[in-house]
Formats: sequence, structure tokens, C-alpha cells
Amino acid sequence: MTMDARAFIRDKRDRRAHQASEIAAFIAATQRGEVPDYQLAAWLMAAFLNGLDRDESRALTEAMVNSGRRFDWKDLGRPSADKHSTGGVGDKVSLVVAPLVAACGVLVPMVAGRGLGHTGGTIDKLEAIPGFRTQLSPEAMRAQLDRLGVVIVGQGAELAPADGALYAMRDVTSTVESESFIVSSIVSKKVAEGAEALVYDVKCGNGAFMRTREDARHLAERLVEATRALGVASSALLTDMNQPLGAAVGNALEVMEAVEVLRGGGPAEVRDLTLDLGVRMLIACGAEQTDDAARTRLTAALDSGSAWRVFASLVEAQGGDARLLDRSDGLPRAPIVRPLLAAQGGSVTAFDTFALGELAVAIGAGRRSKEQPIDPRVGILVRVKIGDVVEAGAPLAELHLAEDNPDAIARLAACVRIEARRVDPVPRVLEAIR
Amino acid sequence: MTMDARAFIRDKRDRRAHQASEIAAFIAATQRGEVPDYQLAAWLMAAFLNGLDRDESRALTEAMVNSGRRFDWKDLGRPSADKHSTGGVGDKVSLVVAPLVAACGVLVPMVAGRGLGHTGGTIDKLEAIPGFRTQLSPEAMRAQLDRLGVVIVGQGAELAPADGALYAMRDVTSTVESESFIVSSIVSKKVAEGAEALVYDVKCGNGAFMRTREDARHLAERLVEATRALGVASSALLTDMNQPLGAAVGNALEVMEAVEVLRGGGPAEVRDLTLDLGVRMLIACGAEQTDDAARTRLTAALDSGSAWRVFASLVEAQGGDARLLDRSDGLPRAPIVRPLLAAQGGSVTAFDTFALGELAVAIGAGRRSKEQPIDPRVGILVRVKIGDVVEAGAPLAELHLAEDNPDAIARLAACVRIEARRVDPVPRVLEAIR
Repeated sequence: MTMDARAFIRDKRDRRAHQASEIAAFIAATQRGEVPDYQLAAWLMAAFLNGLDRDESRALTEAMVNSGRRFDWKDLGRPSADKHSTGGVGDKVSLVVAPLVAACGVLVPMVAGRGLGHTGGTIDKLEAIPGFRTQLSPEAMRAQLDRLGVVIVGQGAELAPADGALYAMRDVTSTVESESFIVSSIVSKKVAEGAEALVYDVKCGNGAFMRTREDARHLAERLVEATRALGVASSALLTDMNQPLGAAVGNALEVMEAVEVLRGGGPAEVRDLTLDLGVRMLIACGAEQTDDAARTRLTAALDSGSAWRVFASLVEAQGGDARLLDRSDGLPRAPIVRPLLAAQGGSVTAFDTFALGELAVAIGAGRRSKEQPIDPRVGILVRVKIGDVVEAGAPLAELHLAEDNPDAIARLAACVRIEARRVDPVPRVLEAIR
Repeated sequence: MTMDARAFIRDKRDRRAHQASEIAAFIAATQRGEVPDYQLAAWLMAAFLNGLDRDESRALTEAMVNSGRRFDWKDLGRPSADKHSTGGVGDKVSLVVAPLVAACGVLVPMVAGRGLGHTGGTIDKLEAIPGFRTQLSPEAMRAQLDRLGVVIVGQGAELAPADGALYAMRDVTSTVESESFIVSSIVSKKVAEGAEALVYDVKCGNGAFMRTREDARHLAERLVEATRALGVASSALLTDMNQPLGAAVGNALEVMEAVEVLRGGGPAEVRDLTLDLGVRMLIACGAEQTDDAARTRLTAALDSGSAWRVFASLVEAQGGDARLLDRSDGLPRAPIVRPLLAAQGGSVTAFDTFALGELAVAIGAGRRSKEQPIDPRVGILVRVKIGDVVEAGAPLAELHLAEDNPDAIARLAACVRIEARRVDPVPRVLEAIR
């Protein structure tokens, strides 16, 4: 069947729903190079503005999964689960939860991303560990999963290649921020990695892509629904991103904070959110039946050091030197550290978390363009949380810089609001979508 | 200034109005090849769905005019005017009104189009006259205008080239039927031809692109407004297109009917509409002050034979042999003529005018694709009008065919509805936009 791209575009332009078979044919034709870029672009804008309904989103997601390989680890004989965060500032939970859940006997075949916009990415963080390899062959992934229960790799060309092509076109046609496209892009990549259960951490607030609770809840529901529609168990947590998660923002700094949590320490909020997400993963894949049982098992794995040992083995297996993680100066460190002190006493009432993430990118922790290298050493340590009471002159944060940058300190100061009034601490988990 | 096409697309996507300077910069960048097709396509769809307001439409029209040459005939020292029809079935008015208005001392620098969809085009009709040239250099146009007062040519590459590029992209991205795009496409080409006054004949009904009176009125108002915004006097007539105009549909057949009207005969409705549009042209360019005076002058030019003599001179000047128009067999004629007879007596209550136009295209009077040649000989002569009472066996129409085609007669029969009830004749002019 030849694809009538004009009729397909016209249908969406006029708000007629596509049949699943039409979407499959369109995506397949795109992959074969039979649809010119301008027709793909026109359809993307029509779909952006007129939306895709649930059946259409499901068909698009399935077409993207079917454009590449779909891993399957069932023959390894253990339950499997993974999590995905929609992106925040200081979110290093994947580094902790992947080995932790693996330590509980559940396979974690994690295919992770790089930083996007003002947010960090798991792959960039792991690459702060000298020698760490994030590209493994499917055979190496399988062998490592079988042996250690966990692998964390970047997305290779074999998983959902149509999503990559669509994303590139969305980027240049200003059609990125569509819920339907976001859902199918996230879900197709995660479903293709072959986990039997997927838990989404949907961030919400001024450091997240979703600013309002309603938007975040809607996205969470669609992610869960789209994932289940493809035969994968799923649930989601809505979590607050009106302040950084933990203290560290920046690649090596976040790895060090993750290591602290894996060793039973670190910021309580990082540990708590890791446990909350781990509980959902154990429940979703059927490894545990109750939240309490799951939490007990995860806490034991964390406090016994077994999660830490799995992480160390993961680092070694993927080419890193885990002994570096034992030393405070093991990972690359920025040559310049500048403190930010409180100009006046009061309560910390708010962060401009987006600006904080942008500042981290600006000093080198992220990329402005795809080609730009990142500096694993640089970043920000945020020493206070919303609700904390501070005195004038108290340390609020530290900038870790590659070169001195007075402008960066001024920008950092503008990210933390101190006021006379008191405010309550912010809960991290807002609600669960089960 | 480099054009930020992504931001420009995003603005329209999010319903923010473009500045006139931004539209000018975007169209100019498109013309310089600096905007990839896919970004143009995404913007076209965003503008199609979210619309352009009046200021944006004006800016787009002006940018398209400025993309090429804008003729100016003021130094010839006479008023100038032209008309444009939005397209119908059997609409040969341009062939009559152009020499008629020229015979009244008004320059008519007509740049005309070809058939589009189910409608005919003035250039295709003129090319039914052997030898007639529709491409003239600007210098030849000027010399002929000065000598005869009228020229009718096809659109050359020098007029509004950006419109041609945009139209080609609209065609393949299903963004043709946007009022803003239609207005700027029509107005830019007509304004560039340099007439001081433009009168629009906006067709309305089941043989027109605008089916409802409201849509037609809205389009007429926008055409007039956009034309005036560029410093050109303008008005419009809304005219009925629920039946063919006159009897002839098809290129040589329509030329012959136009010649009858130019000689003082022909169908009354063609003569009447020609005079109505001529009146508006003489008023709009200031050649006459009152409708009555304009009508008297036009009627005299038609009945004295001076309009016919101008047309004959036009044909000779552009390479045709006007003597062919004196003979009933002068123009190419179809070898096969098949009558359609009334299957029962009654009143003619309706036409499927769109289907009639499509049938004319199907038998060779129009094109299915740009490359397809047309057969000037073929067409349809419709012998009845809505409101006519006919007896069983009376001739309703004739098919002029290149080869026998029983299917065509059946399709033609389905285009004419005969019922027992009586209906009134349909007025041709519905309203005027001044």
C-alpha cells in the first residue's frame, strides 16, 4: 500500500482520528524514507495542535517500538522492572534505585538518557566515573543482567529508531512540548528495553517540565495507561520539583551523593524517594505483594551494604574503577569552590529551580548544543531546603567551577529566596498513580 | 538579522501574532533558501490551524508582492482596472469584460490563471485559439497595453514568486484551503500586475470553492480589505454558482460563447454579469462616477462592436488569428457530440455544479495533474437553467467528446435535477461589497 501522506495530514488537520493501521503505515513509510520531511513536519504540527487521542497515542507508541528491536529478558527467569523520571534538578535517584532493586533480586535493564534542557541525565552522571562505558552490545547487556541483575546504558540505534527521527524533526519544527509526543517518545523507548514493569517519577514544579500538579497528573496517567496498553505493568509517583532533589547538582557531585545514599547516608529526601520508587518497582513487577514488605526488603538491602556492592560491581563491569568511589577525591573535582552566604537571616521560602538548572548548564554541567562536551567536575551544592531557618552569613550553597565566574554567584543568589515569614517544608511525594 | 524560524513557528503555534517585520523576514528568508522546507511546512500548518489576523494577512500579502516585480502603468496616462473570479464552472466573463472595459478607455493589464480543480482558467481558454501566446515580456505587455488598452497573460516568474513557492508547499502539506493563504495568494498576484483598481467576483454555491453565502461574503470582505491595504481601489460582487454560467463549459466552447456576447448576443446572464462587473471596474478606477453612466458606456461599447474589435485586436496582437472567430468551425471542435435528453418532464430545480465541473475535467477540458495536457475541443453545453420547464425528450445538454464515453452521459444526467414542483430562476448577483 502506498501511503497517501496528504490525506493523512488532512485527516489530522480536520480533527479526524487516525486508524491504528494508518499510523503504523505512516511511521513505517517515514522510516523507509518515503515521506518527505515537509510532510512529516506538517503532520507533526497538525497533531501538536489538534492532539492525538488515547488510541492514536497507543498506535504511535507501538509503531515506534516496532521500528526497532524490543528486548526480552524473560528467559533469565527473574522479574524485571525499571523507572523513568521526567527530569528534574539534582535527581540522582536512578543511580541508587537501579542497584538497590537489583539487590532485591529484580532485574533492572535500564536504558537511560542524557541531560535535556536544564535537567541532568543519568548517562552524563555515570560518565563522570572515569572509564565508565554506557554503550554495551545486547549480548553484553544480557550477560551483565544475568550476572549482576542490573545494567545502565545509553539508548542505542536499535531501540525505537523512529522516535529518534521524530524527535529530531520535532526539535526543529517547534513541536516538542506535546503531551502525546512526549508520552509516546518516553514509553516507546522504555517498553523497548524489555522490563516487565515501569514506574514513572513525574516531576512537578518550577524545576520540572510540568509546572502544575494538573499537568503532571495528566501526564502520569497517560504514561501509565500507554505503558499498560503495550502489555507492561506500570504505576507512577508525582513528586515535587520546586527545589533541587538532595544537595548535589552536577555530574560528579551527584554521583558522590548517590554513593552516600547507597552506603546508608546522604540526604534523607534522596533516600526516602529512592525507597518510595523502589517499593513501586517491586510491587509493579510482582516481586512483593505489599508496600510494607517491599519497603522492609529495600531498607535491608540499602542498610546491609548489598545495594552498594551491586553498584560497585556495576561500575567495575562497565569499565569504571569502583575504588575511586571510596575516596572523597576519587572523582574529578572542580578547581574552584565559591560559597554563597545568606545576605540576611530568615526562612528559605522558595527556589527558582529552573534557573538553578540553567545555571548548572551555563557553568558546564550540561550542554547548550548536542556537540558540546560537559565538564563532569562542575556543579552546585545546595545546603538548604524550603522551610529551613538560616542566619545572616550562613552557607546556602557552593558553586563548583572550572574557572572563576562572579556572575555565576550573583545568578545563584537570585535562585534562593529568603524571607522573614516562616514556611513549612515541602513534601517530596505528592501522590501516587496506581 | 538571522531568522529564528523555530521561534517564528512557535509564536504561531501558541497563537501569538507575528509582527509585520517578522513575516517579511520569514518570507524573505524562505526566498533566499534559508528556511528548510520542513520549517516552512510546520509554519504553514500552524498558520492554517491558528489563523492569521488582518494585520498578519496584510503583511504576508505585502511580503509576497515584494518578493518580485510590481508593475506600474501610471505613466501610460489612463486609469487601469482588472477583475478576478474565485473560480466557477463556465465562467468566461474575463474574456468579455477585459476588452469591453478597455474599449471604454480603461487599461486592463490582466494576469490570469489556469484551471484549478473543477474550475476553468482564462489562460487555458485563450489557448484554445490556435497560436495565442499567453507569455509576454514586460516590454511587450507595456507596448500592447499602450496600443490596445488590454493584455491577458499568464503569471510569469517575476510576479510574486514567493506565492508560487508557498503554493507548491501548501499543495503537498494539505494547507491549501486557508482563507488567509487564499487571500494573500490572490491579492499579491493581482496587486503585482499594477492595476489601480481590482474588482472581485466571489463565487458562491455548489460549483464554487465557497459553498455558503457567509463564507463567500467573508472572503469577499477580506479580499477587498487586503487589496485596499496595499493602496489599490477595490470592490466585490458575490455571485451565484449553483449552476454553470452561460451554456458553455470547456475551453473552445467558452471562447465561442464569449465571442457571441462580445458581438451583442450570447446568453443574457453572461452579458448581464459582464456588465455588472464592468460597472464596478469603471467605478473603482474612477473612470465613471455613477453606476448608470458606467452601464450606459459599457452597453454602448458592447453593442457598437467596439469591444469585439478590441478583442479581435488582442487575439491578433498575441499571435492568434481573429478570423477564425468569425466562423462557427474556426476553433477546434470535438469529433463526437452526444445530447442529453430529459428523461421526464418537469422543472429544472438544481444542478450538481461541482460534479459538472469534475466531469468536464474528466473528459479532458481540465487537468488532473500539472503535466497533463488539456483538450481544448471538449466540454459541455448546458441548454437549461434552474427554473426552466422542460418536456420529456427535450434537449438538456450536449457532451462534446474526443472519444465516445457512455459513462460520461450517465454522469452528466446525474448533474441535472428535474422535478414536478416549480422553482424560481436564481438571481446571478447576490450582493455587492463596496
